[in-house]
Amino acid sequence: MADAGRDIEALIEMMARLPGLGPRSARRAVLHLIKKRAVLLMPLADRMHAVAASVRECTVCGNIGTGDICDICADARRTTGEICVVEDVADLWAMERGQAFKGRYHVLGGTLSALESVGPEELRIPQLIARVRDEAIGEIILALNATVDGQTTAHYIADELEGTGVRVTSLAQGVPIGGELDYLDDGTISAALKARKGL
Amino acid sequence: MADAGRDIEALIEMMARLPGLGPRSARRAVLHLIKKRAVLLMPLADRMHAVAASVRECTVCGNIGTGDICDICADARRTTGEICVVEDVADLWAMERGQAFKGRYHVLGGTLSALESVGPEELRIPQLIARVRDEAIGEIILALNATVDGQTTAHYIADELEGTGVRVTSLAQGVPIGGELDYLDDGTISAALKARKGL
Ligand SMILES: [Zn+2]
Ligand SMILES: [Zn+2]
Repeated sequence: MADAGRDIEALIEMMARLPGLGPRSARRAVLHLIKKRAVLLMPLADRMHAVAASVRECTVCGNIGTGDICDICADARRTTGEICVVEDVADLWAMERGQAFKGRYHVLGGTLSALESVGPEELRIPQLIARVRDEAIGEIILALNATVDGQTTAHYIADELEGTGVRVTSLAQGVPIGGELDYLDDGTISAALKARKGL
Repeated sequence: MADAGRDIEALIEMMARLPGLGPRSARRAVLHLIKKRAVLLMPLADRMHAVAASVRECTVCGNIGTGDICDICADARRTTGEICVVEDVADLWAMERGQAFKGRYHVLGGTLSALESVGPEELRIPQLIARVRDEAIGEIILALNATVDGQTTAHYIADELEGTGVRVTSLAQGVPIGGELDYLDDGTISAALKARKGL
């Protein structure tokens, strides 16, 4: 596209690399933004700058937010003593949409994987063990994806916590085999949480 | 999502309004951008600002570019005397990907529509008539979508140009009924251009 100017081409290429967008939808999105550049493109760029400048990982749970401690960890109305362990922030958001869990979270940042040589140290698992030791935790709810790596990670964490006296449970009914939390409807997640069982 | 901070929520909402993205893919895209904020989010925001600041409509043809005259109108290697009329910049890009047309363009900015009360004055049709009068134009190729409004617009333009001596043609074979140019593969567009017929 010699016509579009180098900045426009570069913008389309960057947008095309986002998950969910391909070259065609990136072109349409950029054209849409350009047509409404005063009310859409400029505000979107401003907002991206604001987020890039302010966003950081919560030092307690690994969730993203705009302070050292995320909104959930800082919320005094959330139940203490219960930690829901998720792989990713997207899964935390999915749990929150389910509106069934009132405790705090711990974001692992992935799953154990022999294939991709991801060990416990890469995953914030040591930080989880430390929280169980330091905070008065009664229950750890493992809300990991029903994949092989997700379940391997769940069993590893359950083993590590054995003897600490903490109750370790996992989401049970309603999560289909091979299913990923972020793709489930909100009701399924609530049902799975209510029917959680001991590991 | 009380957890994500107001800027992140606002960013997701803005992204979700882009064509081709819904709430779910917007969440995934924003999370992806945040995880790689130094190498993805910040550069994307910078690029959007650059485009928003520099982009403008070509005063000759209505294409977008970064100067008063777009790259195509300014390109001395493009054939003069032939204008390809398109509804939208997306259609111009689709024509360029077909690599079969070597002339200049005229972007109408839509189609005539009784329903949405879009008349010739809203569409850069007067500017097209003026170009035919002022430039030495031998042929006008109407590359409009094969929709009712697209074809109404084609016939209106053909009528307006009657008696000017200019040859008016339209894309023919290969454009399916009801089809939109931007969704066609590049080969179909080339074939339709080569088999164009007089109106
Ligand atoms: Zn936190
Ligand atoms: Zn131009």
